[in-house]
Amino acid sequence: MSVHSGLNKAFYPESVAIIGASADEEVERSSGWLGRFQQSGYKGRLYPINPRATQILGLKAYPSILDVPEQVDYAVLGVRASLVPKLLRECVTKGVGVVHVFAGGFVESGKEEGRRLQQQVAEIIKGSNTRLIGPNCLSVYCPSSGLTFNLGFPAKSGPVGVVSQTGAALQRLVPVADSRGIHFSKVISYGNAVDVDSPELIDFLANDPETKCVWAYIEGVADGQAFLRSVVNCTQKKPVVILKGGLTEGGARAISSHTATLVGTKRVWQAFFKQTNAIPVETFDEALNQLTAILYFTPPAGRRVGIVGLGGGLSVVTTDICEREGLQVPPFSGETLEGLETLKGLADIGRGIKNPVEMGLAASGLFKDYAEGVRMVASDPNVDFLLIQLYPEGYVHHLVEGNLMAPALDVLVSTVKNLPKPVVTVIGLGHEIASVGLALEAHKRCRQAGFPVFSTPEDAAKAVSKLITYYERKGR
Amino acid sequence: MSVHSGLNKAFYPESVAIIGASADEEVERSSGWLGRFQQSGYKGRLYPINPRATQILGLKAYPSILDVPEQVDYAVLGVRASLVPKLLRECVTKGVGVVHVFAGGFVESGKEEGRRLQQQVAEIIKGSNTRLIGPNCLSVYCPSSGLTFNLGFPAKSGPVGVVSQTGAALQRLVPVADSRGIHFSKVISYGNAVDVDSPELIDFLANDPETKCVWAYIEGVADGQAFLRSVVNCTQKKPVVILKGGLTEGGARAISSHTATLVGTKRVWQAFFKQTNAIPVETFDEALNQLTAILYFTPPAGRRVGIVGLGGGLSVVTTDICEREGLQVPPFSGETLEGLETLKGLADIGRGIKNPVEMGLAASGLFKDYAEGVRMVASDPNVDFLLIQLYPEGYVHHLVEGNLMAPALDVLVSTVKNLPKPVVTVIGLGHEIASVGLALEAHKRCRQAGFPVFSTPEDAAKAVSKLITYYERKGR
Repeated sequence: MSVHSGLNKAFYPESVAIIGASADEEVERSSGWLGRFQQSGYKGRLYPINPRATQILGLKAYPSILDVPEQVDYAVLGVRASLVPKLLRECVTKGVGVVHVFAGGFVESGKEEGRRLQQQVAEIIKGSNTRLIGPNCLSVYCPSSGLTFNLGFPAKSGPVGVVSQTGAALQRLVPVADSRGIHFSKVISYGNAVDVDSPELIDFLANDPETKCVWAYIEGVADGQAFLRSVVNCTQKKPVVILKGGLTEGGARAISSHTATLVGTKRVWQAFFKQTNAIPVETFDEALNQLTAILYFTPPAGRRVGIVGLGGGLSVVTTDICEREGLQVPPFSGETLEGLETLKGLADIGRGIKNPVEMGLAASGLFKDYAEGVRMVASDPNVDFLLIQLYPEGYVHHLVEGNLMAPALDVLVSTVKNLPKPVVTVIGLGHEIASVGLALEAHKRCRQAGFPVFSTPEDAAKAVSKLITYYERKGR
Repeated sequence: MSVHSGLNKAFYPESVAIIGASADEEVERSSGWLGRFQQSGYKGRLYPINPRATQILGLKAYPSILDVPEQVDYAVLGVRASLVPKLLRECVTKGVGVVHVFAGGFVESGKEEGRRLQQQVAEIIKGSNTRLIGPNCLSVYCPSSGLTFNLGFPAKSGPVGVVSQTGAALQRLVPVADSRGIHFSKVISYGNAVDVDSPELIDFLANDPETKCVWAYIEGVADGQAFLRSVVNCTQKKPVVILKGGLTEGGARAISSHTATLVGTKRVWQAFFKQTNAIPVETFDEALNQLTAILYFTPPAGRRVGIVGLGGGLSVVTTDICEREGLQVPPFSGETLEGLETLKGLADIGRGIKNPVEMGLAASGLFKDYAEGVRMVASDPNVDFLLIQLYPEGYVHHLVEGNLMAPALDVLVSTVKNLPKPVVTVIGLGHEIASVGLALEAHKRCRQAGFPVFSTPEDAAKAVSKLITYYERKGR
């Protein structure tokens, strides 16, 4: 039991009421909250509330929450905005632990009626024992208790806790994360934040043993100092990734019609990131990249990277990318250079023996001394970690028959597993279905072997560099 | 006939000698220059040169280039570095127009012998009528004359001319470009640039009627002023995209063992881009994005963008991305807002009616007034062009059966074709084979309909903004 026993009821309720469950069972099954919780494996007691039904999806329906014969931990208010005040009052009377108000149409509508409704909601909750999530949000996805807001979300639980002021983005991001090997302890979409707000949610995740890192999408905060304190506290325990929406003029304007919260200036947020050691990201895709680094990359001793893969201009540009992102690509030690010179395949064809070193997939298969070369780089005292690049497009475009990628990955995986230093892998997707298919399979194998994989060197360098910065600053 | 008649012989030779063609016909067919030119449709006369063969792949072989019974326009010197000086001297004696020296192992090897060999090559060429491309390069891919350095490259010609100091990157980039609808007039990999260098190549492409835009990958230039002049001249006629490798310390070090050319400081190159109006890019993938914008995007009247697609946090972040990249996301005019309010599907469910406006794919198909809504945005006097986002992952993850993407694209394509303003589309790839497959098909349809498509809003915003800057500065 967390100290936030109130919020705990939102994630692990023993009883849940669905206010506004549809009497049309097909509708409720396919797109209602009751249907969702039934199918996603929620094990507690469910109470459909609908004055015009006696039974819904095999459960006794009640005309009002006041008629439910036991304490209700969590209630979903799945009705339109204008009906919310009356039904929310009943929840307060009943002493419901946490109420989720789903509907939009409050302050974010920009209309007087919406503003008035939100005001009313705030007044109803004030001083009560009932907590409120929303309005204008999707509330909780918690695989370990079987609560979800999308039946397409995985049943598998994971180490990432999410606090998000948007729900729509999560509908897309959670499944994409799943296909990238990123899973969640708790995801909460909290919308207009009339009562439960980001500081409390971040405190909750900081103390949640299921949660090993936190990602927050924030549009604005009502109490900046409380938010700062919660993030400072959390980053001391686990990495916190923050995507701050609305840092541009147009973005701030877009927020006014989304959650209508206080945005804050760019300068304030720059100072915030410095002070808290939260990891800033700028897009949802970058958030997933950062989580990939957090979950799969072992923090190295420093930021000096040995690059293995593509030669020529590709190696020059990858070096530029790494150094632009704050990594260092040092010369190899004399011993490493001498060792690499002994690898016939490298020396004979005049490949530059340097950092980056050109070894990898070719039309004829993996370079034969690949494992040996990678080990030499990993043993170099100038190198803290390795970045390894492979591009299966090469196979596709060289019209190679058969899957040479699979045996190449056998070598890669067994080599990486026994290295003394961390590795980050880049396996390009290409732009046609054959190469994308090979690449996605390769990504899966790397993840299963426990090391991080990205689609581009920019994604890899950025995520890894920011993670190193987090640990450097945490260590101070 | 171009004024650079010398170089013209490299792209449109009437006769080609392959010095070092293999007597092993299997080897020559699969990986030799003679095999390549035969199979890629070169229509001129081919002369294999090999002192130990009388015939190769059906053609009479000659012991030396001196024995060829006619003038040779273009010769490939496909032998190892140590043999180059002797055979190059014979080419000069023969009066060959252009010689391509393929081998590495010159200055870029970092070894004394390589330095000496490169010096020798320079001296042999000096004052002769023979031009030299290389050493350490792949030379020419010119679909309209059938010359290529990779049999996997498309036979289809296109409007992009490429000048590149790396060949390996092109092996990957040309096929990826093909799958993104980008095709080439002439691609030239020129390596260590002992004779033919980037200024002359850029001048050639500036005057080439087949070439509508130029992309250059540059590591260093011997004559900075000549390079500057050639780029200034070319940008006045057509867009020039430049990826400058080695702008970081590590990148510059990587170049020393690649082409070993003079790198130049970051500050010099910043001034260069200002002065020339060349479009700077930082990665090979960004170069392809920039070419996509150049080939498929009609330059709009200004940089004010109306965004159609995803709502909530995704729309906020897309707005931030656009404004960070130098675009503007203005409020819609009152008339547009009033019009959008009349679209029932938007107003009823409380979606924010603003810029960005939330319309697009949902689990149940395309929003029903989609075409009407897009037309309203395009008619707004505050908007110069549209950015439209669609994410087929939504379909995949909502477990929708059947391909709803195809009918949605019918609507999109027919709507966009009749709009008064340019459109840029973003169709996300996702990270599993089903969604990637849908997305790649969708990309193809957009391209075929003649408008640009990108995988992320950042790619789109960056490429489009830089293109607008090019035209703004060109117009002055």
